[in-house]
Amino acid sequence: MQKEFYKSYVDELRNTLQHGTKRGEQRKANSINGIKDATRFYSNVPMKMALSAERDEKLFESLQSLNSISGKKVNYHLKPGAHPDFEDLKDEKSFEKHYIISIFIDVKNSTNLFRRYTPETIANIINVIQRAAIHTVWYFDGYIQRYHGDGLFAYFGGKSISKMDATKNALTATSFINYFMKNDLKKLFNEQGIENIYARIGIDLGDDEDVLWYKAGMGDCSEITTCSLHTSLASKMQSVASNNGIVVGDNIKSHASISEDFFEHVRDTSGKVDSYAFEIPNESFYYKQWDFNWTKYLKSLPHIEEDADGNLYIKDKGQDEAERIQKLIQAAQLINSGNAFTDRNGNISAAAGIKNQEHRFHYE
Amino acid sequence: MQKEFYKSYVDELRNTLQHGTKRGEQRKANSINGIKDATRFYSNVPMKMALSAERDEKLFESLQSLNSISGKKVNYHLKPGAHPDFEDLKDEKSFEKHYIISIFIDVKNSTNLFRRYTPETIANIINVIQRAAIHTVWYFDGYIQRYHGDGLFAYFGGKSISKMDATKNALTATSFINYFMKNDLKKLFNEQGIENIYARIGIDLGDDEDVLWYKAGMGDCSEITTCSLHTSLASKMQSVASNNGIVVGDNIKSHASISEDFFEHVRDTSGKVDSYAFEIPNESFYYKQWDFNWTKYLKSLPHIEEDADGNLYIKDKGQDEAERIQKLIQAAQLINSGNAFTDRNGNISAAAGIKNQEHRFHYE
Repeated sequence: MQKEFYKSYVDELRNTLQHGTKRGEQRKANSINGIKDATRFYSNVPMKMALSAERDEKLFESLQSLNSISGKKVNYHLKPGAHPDFEDLKDEKSFEKHYIISIFIDVKNSTNLFRRYTPETIANIINVIQRAAIHTVWYFDGYIQRYHGDGLFAYFGGKSISKMDATKNALTATSFINYFMKNDLKKLFNEQGIENIYARIGIDLGDDEDVLWYKAGMGDCSEITTCSLHTSLASKMQSVASNNGIVVGDNIKSHASISEDFFEHVRDTSGKVDSYAFEIPNESFYYKQWDFNWTKYLKSLPHIEEDADGNLYIKDKGQDEAERIQKLIQAAQLINSGNAFTDRNGNISAAAGIKNQEHRFHYE
Repeated sequence: MQKEFYKSYVDELRNTLQHGTKRGEQRKANSINGIKDATRFYSNVPMKMALSAERDEKLFESLQSLNSISGKKVNYHLKPGAHPDFEDLKDEKSFEKHYIISIFIDVKNSTNLFRRYTPETIANIINVIQRAAIHTVWYFDGYIQRYHGDGLFAYFGGKSISKMDATKNALTATSFINYFMKNDLKKLFNEQGIENIYARIGIDLGDDEDVLWYKAGMGDCSEITTCSLHTSLASKMQSVASNNGIVVGDNIKSHASISEDFFEHVRDTSGKVDSYAFEIPNESFYYKQWDFNWTKYLKSLPHIEEDADGNLYIKDKGQDEAERIQKLIQAAQLINSGNAFTDRNGNISAAAGIKNQEHRFHYE
């Protein structure tokens, strides 16, 4: 059975796009013309503004189809700017050094929604898109640090998770967010004839010696935050990412323990290679940035399949089992045909290796 | 007596820049070379990380020299995302429409501080710069909505202030922030041989019918925020502003009730005029953006004077009185010389108008 990862978000958004109050309709109804007053006649139709806890959880439901990847219960963090592993900085310690992965997600082009809809409708649209991103971050054990306009600043990693696991989580979460933006949201917006919204993402890892954790601000305003070259670079790399692109620092590439093939050169709009995120020439310090091929990465994950239309889905266990049996049947047929070969890993195929022989036993 | 507006911030920053731990020194001390590890050897010297309430108030002191402009006590708001005029949205109402001015301040180029200093020192530098901006916003009755990296998102206006006054406050606050960045900070950084940091600012006013106030997020995460074309445009206009520039929407120009001369065409990097922040051609809706000449505006404010080095300062009352008496003496001398003229506004000068005559009385 095929499952859409973001089905509940898509359904909620489709409903809002179809039935939300439209700027044009309202404007015509008021039969007012003239440039100066063109923005004045938004509808006053009330809509659900803030998400209730129940509505939020209902949205979260469809993401549960990812369970077969993560294989565990979701970390449901509500308060931004309060990574639990560094909470003691609030009162006791003054600062601490510890590795962290910073991600910046910027949502672009949302201003164009004002061409079509009233602020009431737009607030709902942005809310649901932002929830999809927040839930995905939570799902892969990330921590929301701050809202940035329509976008997000989040951390991955902490005291009880390895740099490798945290790096993979950050890459997987942002890949899914981009998949939602580039696939689900794009289809939905095309369906309604709306200009596309897209994301730009930057990620970097600062090592234990390089990340300062401290309490910033004061009183009610305070948050636990980091000061690090690599937090700043994650933000800079976000701004060089292409539409629905992810740019990562060299530390991410070296800690991810995945194939080099997923990392490509960053290129500027003219196609020129832009290798370095930061350089101090007189210290021979050159820090590289990479364009992360998240589509390729998502397809490489276990249990993830792509259908004919380019949609990704999670194969359920029934399907996995059916495919396993189908393969066994094919292998049995091959062996029976007398054309089977076994390679050095014990795989049976019709291609190459040592020709299969009739079964013989030692005592023969 | 000349007063520097941002003296306490400048003193604090100078101290940090001079005595903060430097990346290079630490790196050499560790005598480690090689590209990969170059960022690893920051110092562990502890510094004051978060600002205490007392330290914060002490910083605020020098801004009090602005009292002769504002003539009133400062609104000291601590919690972001909680405009007091719309607090009832938290629990009772679901939404409300009300005008607001949105400002976005982006601090650029701060990543370069990592070429010189350790994260400990940088956290302190950024803290003080951000405080200067926050305090200036508070000083002119603005409300911090969110921190954006090193920058800010703030509102001006509310239920008991006119659009004109709020617009003037927003323009004055952002002009002072840019003055701090372009004048004080630049001098300080040049003094230390550090690459300059600068601000880019966008401002727009959304009218009563166009701004939706509502509670966003959920539970602990929630904030009172706005959805409006003009909040989005303020953010877009920030990104087209030049270094230490302020770009404002047409609504700001029309509500400010100040001379047209302060508003110039926005130009792109090639010098081409970029008149519109947003357009819907088939509705003949074209919304203009303007480059605000904040230096000229600051110099036009009462009590503000410029010294020979281009520093602005507030003339104190003693100086005002001395200048008034000096002018009276000059006028008296002119009249006594027999070369004085009076123009139609009653001003006396040696230039033009009706020649002054000996005093005559009606019964003459």
